[in-house]
Amino acid sequence: MAHLMSTSCSIKISSSYRPCGQPLSQDRTVLPNSFTIKTSKSPFKRLVSKGHRAGRSCVVLATAAPVSKEVSANPRSGSDRSPNDSSKPQRVMVIGGDGYCGWATALHLSNKGYEVAIVDSLVRRLFDHQLGLDSLTPISSIHNRLRCWKAITGKTIELYIGDICDFEFLSETFNSFEPDAVVHFGEQRSAPYSMIDRSRAVFTQKNNVIGTLNVLFAIKEFREECHLVKLGTMGEYGTPNIDIEEGYITISHNGRTDTLPYPKQASSFYHLSKVHDSNNIAFTCKAWGIRATDLNQGVVYGVKTDETSMHEQLYNRLDYDGVFGTALNRFCVQAAVGHPLTVYGKGGQTRGYLDIRDTVQCLELAIANPAKPGEFRVFNQFTEQFSVNELAALVTKAGQKLGLDVQTISVPNPRVEAEEHYYNAKHTKL
Amino acid sequence: MAHLMSTSCSIKISSSYRPCGQPLSQDRTVLPNSFTIKTSKSPFKRLVSKGHRAGRSCVVLATAAPVSKEVSANPRSGSDRSPNDSSKPQRVMVIGGDGYCGWATALHLSNKGYEVAIVDSLVRRLFDHQLGLDSLTPISSIHNRLRCWKAITGKTIELYIGDICDFEFLSETFNSFEPDAVVHFGEQRSAPYSMIDRSRAVFTQKNNVIGTLNVLFAIKEFREECHLVKLGTMGEYGTPNIDIEEGYITISHNGRTDTLPYPKQASSFYHLSKVHDSNNIAFTCKAWGIRATDLNQGVVYGVKTDETSMHEQLYNRLDYDGVFGTALNRFCVQAAVGHPLTVYGKGGQTRGYLDIRDTVQCLELAIANPAKPGEFRVFNQFTEQFSVNELAALVTKAGQKLGLDVQTISVPNPRVEAEEHYYNAKHTKL
Repeated sequence: MAHLMSTSCSIKISSSYRPCGQPLSQDRTVLPNSFTIKTSKSPFKRLVSKGHRAGRSCVVLATAAPVSKEVSANPRSGSDRSPNDSSKPQRVMVIGGDGYCGWATALHLSNKGYEVAIVDSLVRRLFDHQLGLDSLTPISSIHNRLRCWKAITGKTIELYIGDICDFEFLSETFNSFEPDAVVHFGEQRSAPYSMIDRSRAVFTQKNNVIGTLNVLFAIKEFREECHLVKLGTMGEYGTPNIDIEEGYITISHNGRTDTLPYPKQASSFYHLSKVHDSNNIAFTCKAWGIRATDLNQGVVYGVKTDETSMHEQLYNRLDYDGVFGTALNRFCVQAAVGHPLTVYGKGGQTRGYLDIRDTVQCLELAIANPAKPGEFRVFNQFTEQFSVNELAALVTKAGQKLGLDVQTISVPNPRVEAEEHYYNAKHTKL
Repeated sequence: MAHLMSTSCSIKISSSYRPCGQPLSQDRTVLPNSFTIKTSKSPFKRLVSKGHRAGRSCVVLATAAPVSKEVSANPRSGSDRSPNDSSKPQRVMVIGGDGYCGWATALHLSNKGYEVAIVDSLVRRLFDHQLGLDSLTPISSIHNRLRCWKAITGKTIELYIGDICDFEFLSETFNSFEPDAVVHFGEQRSAPYSMIDRSRAVFTQKNNVIGTLNVLFAIKEFREECHLVKLGTMGEYGTPNIDIEEGYITISHNGRTDTLPYPKQASSFYHLSKVHDSNNIAFTCKAWGIRATDLNQGVVYGVKTDETSMHEQLYNRLDYDGVFGTALNRFCVQAAVGHPLTVYGKGGQTRGYLDIRDTVQCLELAIANPAKPGEFRVFNQFTEQFSVNELAALVTKAGQKLGLDVQTISVPNPRVEAEEHYYNAKHTKL
């Protein structure tokens, strides 16, 4: 509980960035309405960055030169992994690596010694412009993020900017980077966004389904041994009146038994797109021998990981609006600014939650232990379950400790969902 | 059995069309390798056709003028339905009405007194050009088909030519025709086509999923009482080791019970697109109160219905190639030309089958008895189950009666599928 709250509220706001060459001080920044956060001192190195374009027209490859010869000669120094462990995947492509989970994952894997490339169209940043939204934590451009990472750690993360729905672009990234594993976060990931209007519903399903199909075809055509780690969501399952298993369920029916895909009841065009993806991936595992891991994540909270905390230019985004912000993020910001916490309907909606530090560790575990050829593994990925009312109570309690008077109101639920229901999901495998 | 075989082999081939004004004679046409078919005499009327364009730029509306004032004044004369029965759906839009099932359905509904509009991009005819394929039964242009139908029956079927993935076009068809029911056949419907290459896999899923999303949004925005009758496929279920129920299954698990969507295990990008559609539709029924019927059809066979038999310009297509032809169609044509029947693998693949005359009757029943607002009804629609080996045996037996020496060979299975499996599907509701 305390862990959850401290993580979620540990945000640092500054009106402008210090140059990447200035290390973080032990300063304390006062948030509106008294949320105070202590930032940690980080190691820091001289930045020597150099950008270059790949020869191919649709690939933008941004990279940074090694900080020193020592680091350059042994880019995995300080890593937990041995560079000579050739049986393990070495090269990981993080699609959607500029986003909330993708950025934290890319840094974590780079820090652990993997060769990492980020593939991203940066369309998530465009959504902010279009909808008039912004992260509460100011985030650097992807180029500055990567330069800063290089300066601090000596590690290079390659960058391919483009749309994976464009198969020519995706093919070139595969042939250029030659990944051993692909972590696929490159999807429109907001349920409310997918429900704004027809255009965004269609965008969500087209972008997510066709992008994933392209990734599957790219693996089949160019890197058939490559392990796909696909981010799903616990929301694919809906809220059935029986226990939620991990991907599959054994059903006995009329005297016969089979283990079948767990029935899904998604409740937005976004969640549905993830169900479509899961079904498509499962088929290609069977038909083509693709090796895939489907990580059904709960609601992820927190902005800090060991890596994003190293410098403010590495900070992760924190969305608190009604489109991209989760209930927990919105409650924290509402408490901070003195607005009542807005609970949708009865507030009995229960979901699984996990800290973003657990997300990146789960990802690393999945990559280090790949699925077998033809295997479609499904892991549910969360650590705790909370109802919306429980979240509101936690935020209220945390606010009171900070001297805030936190009120809660119920507002009409904009979603069609059960507001009181049974919820018991399994998460035994990771 | 006999019924199945006689229907499937009752095809008439002529090298050129007679003008629509010439009634069919009791002629007998000799098929290659001795398949002989007797065609029936049909009633026929004078053709007076008149085309006009709708005022909107992207709507092509082809229609024909009334044959006589009497017919014009009472377009439902001869119908089984009362024109004054206002509680019943009157106006049915058949999306994909130029295709195999859609054409037969459009004529059947028109004959039964419904006001019918066909919406079709005619892309199915383009596939034939692109792949070098053709229907064994020469088919008329959609314009000639509709003129002929008008001439014979006095009934007008409106025609909107365009792509339902273009929402502007679809919106205009909805606002122009104002359907009470939409029968949605407008999808790429071949599993082998969807597996040819990446481009066609992506086309299939994009076309089918986005087209259906657009139909759902059109209903929501313009005709919220409109009943959607969507064609699914028994192939969505795959071949589970338990009985296949109709859309839902009641599961008892760890002491609790719920009725959930039946788990699907589709085995091609086409079949997967239908699963995606089903999930999307189920959600909109719940979220928006859409009324929908999902008809999971088995393999449809036969070319003749009461209506398509009326004149050769109304004949339905018969595909016998490896992309659009079903195993049964291919076996019939192989037997006719003296080619061994090509069974994929062991031949134990078992599926549900139904005559196209049953298809059109099921459609009419579903339309006449619409789903309630918010209801997502699922019907399995087939009459018999056969394995591929059983089909081969049936065709061999039918061929022997015609003096043909029919051989069967096993060829490597181009599909990833169980070749021997349990199969017991329910079809109790229709």
